[in-house]
Amino acid sequence: MTGLRIDVERAQQEMAVKTKPLGALGRLEDVGVRLAVLQGTLSPVIDRARVCVFGADHGVTDEGVSAYPRAVTGEMMRNFDRGGAAINVIARAGNVEVEVIDVGVDADLSSLATVHSARVRAGSRNFAREPAMTPDEVRQAMEVGASAARRAHDSGVQVIGLGEMGIGNTTSAAALLSVFASASAEQTVGRGTGIDDAVLEHKRRVVEQAVGRHTQLTSLSAVDALRALGGLEIAAMAGAALEASSLGLAVIADGFISTTAVLAALHLARDESPARVDRLSRALFFAHRSAERGHTLAMEACGGFENCDARPLLDLGLRLGEGTGAALAVSLLRAAAAVMRDMATFTSAGVSDGGHTEHRA
Amino acid sequence: MTGLRIDVERAQQEMAVKTKPLGALGRLEDVGVRLAVLQGTLSPVIDRARVCVFGADHGVTDEGVSAYPRAVTGEMMRNFDRGGAAINVIARAGNVEVEVIDVGVDADLSSLATVHSARVRAGSRNFAREPAMTPDEVRQAMEVGASAARRAHDSGVQVIGLGEMGIGNTTSAAALLSVFASASAEQTVGRGTGIDDAVLEHKRRVVEQAVGRHTQLTSLSAVDALRALGGLEIAAMAGAALEASSLGLAVIADGFISTTAVLAALHLARDESPARVDRLSRALFFAHRSAERGHTLAMEACGGFENCDARPLLDLGLRLGEGTGAALAVSLLRAAAAVMRDMATFTSAGVSDGGHTEHRA
Repeated sequence: MTGLRIDVERAQQEMAVKTKPLGALGRLEDVGVRLAVLQGTLSPVIDRARVCVFGADHGVTDEGVSAYPRAVTGEMMRNFDRGGAAINVIARAGNVEVEVIDVGVDADLSSLATVHSARVRAGSRNFAREPAMTPDEVRQAMEVGASAARRAHDSGVQVIGLGEMGIGNTTSAAALLSVFASASAEQTVGRGTGIDDAVLEHKRRVVEQAVGRHTQLTSLSAVDALRALGGLEIAAMAGAALEASSLGLAVIADGFISTTAVLAALHLARDESPARVDRLSRALFFAHRSAERGHTLAMEACGGFENCDARPLLDLGLRLGEGTGAALAVSLLRAAAAVMRDMATFTSAGVSDGGHTEHRA
Repeated sequence: MTGLRIDVERAQQEMAVKTKPLGALGRLEDVGVRLAVLQGTLSPVIDRARVCVFGADHGVTDEGVSAYPRAVTGEMMRNFDRGGAAINVIARAGNVEVEVIDVGVDADLSSLATVHSARVRAGSRNFAREPAMTPDEVRQAMEVGASAARRAHDSGVQVIGLGEMGIGNTTSAAALLSVFASASAEQTVGRGTGIDDAVLEHKRRVVEQAVGRHTQLTSLSAVDALRALGGLEIAAMAGAALEASSLGLAVIADGFISTTAVLAALHLARDESPARVDRLSRALFFAHRSAERGHTLAMEACGGFENCDARPLLDLGLRLGEGTGAALAVSLLRAAAAVMRDMATFTSAGVSDGGHTEHRA
């Protein structure tokens, strides 16, 4: 690849002379190499990390597709504000910042001091009956994400994780994945927060019919797919991923919804230019393999883009969202950057290499 | 189980009312529950963590079983001392302490200020020809590990990871695993730091013959197996695991050699009492699935002990040792403790639970 200050081969050469058997740090070596290329230096730094949690409601909850009432979205925003949710405690434990953004919650959150208010609309429309958003709403929601990425960048953050909260959003993500991956509702619809068999069957039908009504979508632009079936937080995450990668940040996808947003961003980038896809692909890391059906398929679809290493770093059976997996994965990126940056070489440490590496003159 | 201040069921009840769908944090919930039981509180703390790296040489390197010369053990101890090895940089990145202990290195390390000097003997004997250690040397090496665990406990550490450095030690670990798991050299011998096919075949024969010469070992005590085939650092790690669990610390096994040492500790505990096995089993966490052949078998053997959850937390293709995987896993234990300790409940946060949890009065 031209235009990179540090190319993959140069970074791999440097990794190979570190004081360890060749390849003995496995995936951590790959991540270290990718961070070096992304940051354009053999001394990459992952110090400050931030998970952006985008909250929004979904009109499709009118169809009875979720195990929890719609009010939970707003209630969880309050929980985030008080620091009691999973993402709060996991991020604190891992020295990761959290910014919560209201891009479309249907509740009065005006009293919440720590929630960034950027509401485009109090919930997307019910995509079982009409397009979820207008083209303008999609653009606005993407801009909410983009500005969150700029805030992170401007404050010195090197990596953002993409988190979300939105009752009903596995339904929206499943519909989008069905379009982007040309997959059936059977493949993309899962139990979300924990629906039973009957609701699961109903949820499949809702997704199948909505996607079916838009069979022409596969030939439409990524923006049109988002408009028809997306959620405001999904559009925001896609906008955040695009902008963050433009600014040179690493971007960590979390679970099913977050990964589907990243897949949407890759399609949006493809609609723009190959260089745009390349830049985004090289910035992406995938935190974990979620237990939610469809997530593996979503990662595979991302992995179909050149230079997108969509292998998940963790596999812990998480299926919570909120960016919790992304927060956990930050420690692995930090370690990988430290390996690339700070480990001694065989030469510098005076360690015999057993003839395994070629020392350069 | 009697005698626990917090039993598993009580901890699981508490985990179930946290503001998340039931089970949505997957393995992290299991770890949080186990930490609560281990520490006897619903507010477990994993704040200070330490990886103890035990270094020793192995007489069996005379047989030509390793890709690196024996001198590398001492050279790497110097590298640890200067902070340039993988464990140094990974631990720093993850806010984990490192203590390096010379339990049997065959090199002059007197100038190394940060290396704890506790050498029992300058390398174990060549077990292809004679028992690797005397019974007294095994006891001394185990005591070196036990005292490292006491130092950690006395300084306020809540969890120790078991790391090692010792050219030749995959050969010793493979022989021990063959005995403890009644497995062939084919199943237990791998490429270690990176030997080729010819050396691999030779290494298998060395292990096969040494184990064959001690077929009666399966009926012998765990101490006798360690004496015949073990390494000083392996005995030290076993001693550290036993003592740390007695002191109420969590213990993280790293890769192949570390896990084999933990397996030895479980057998040593079994030779003592069922209560001893139970205490150790409940303290153990398994950091990762190593790429070294035999590691999965070693974990399965550990998992055969009651209450020992030997499922690895990470699967990153690591095969370095030094406690690097254990250092990486610390962040997951910290997150799990924080979830158990600090997350709001549906009641405390005023979040609708969708009828998924039974609120107690």
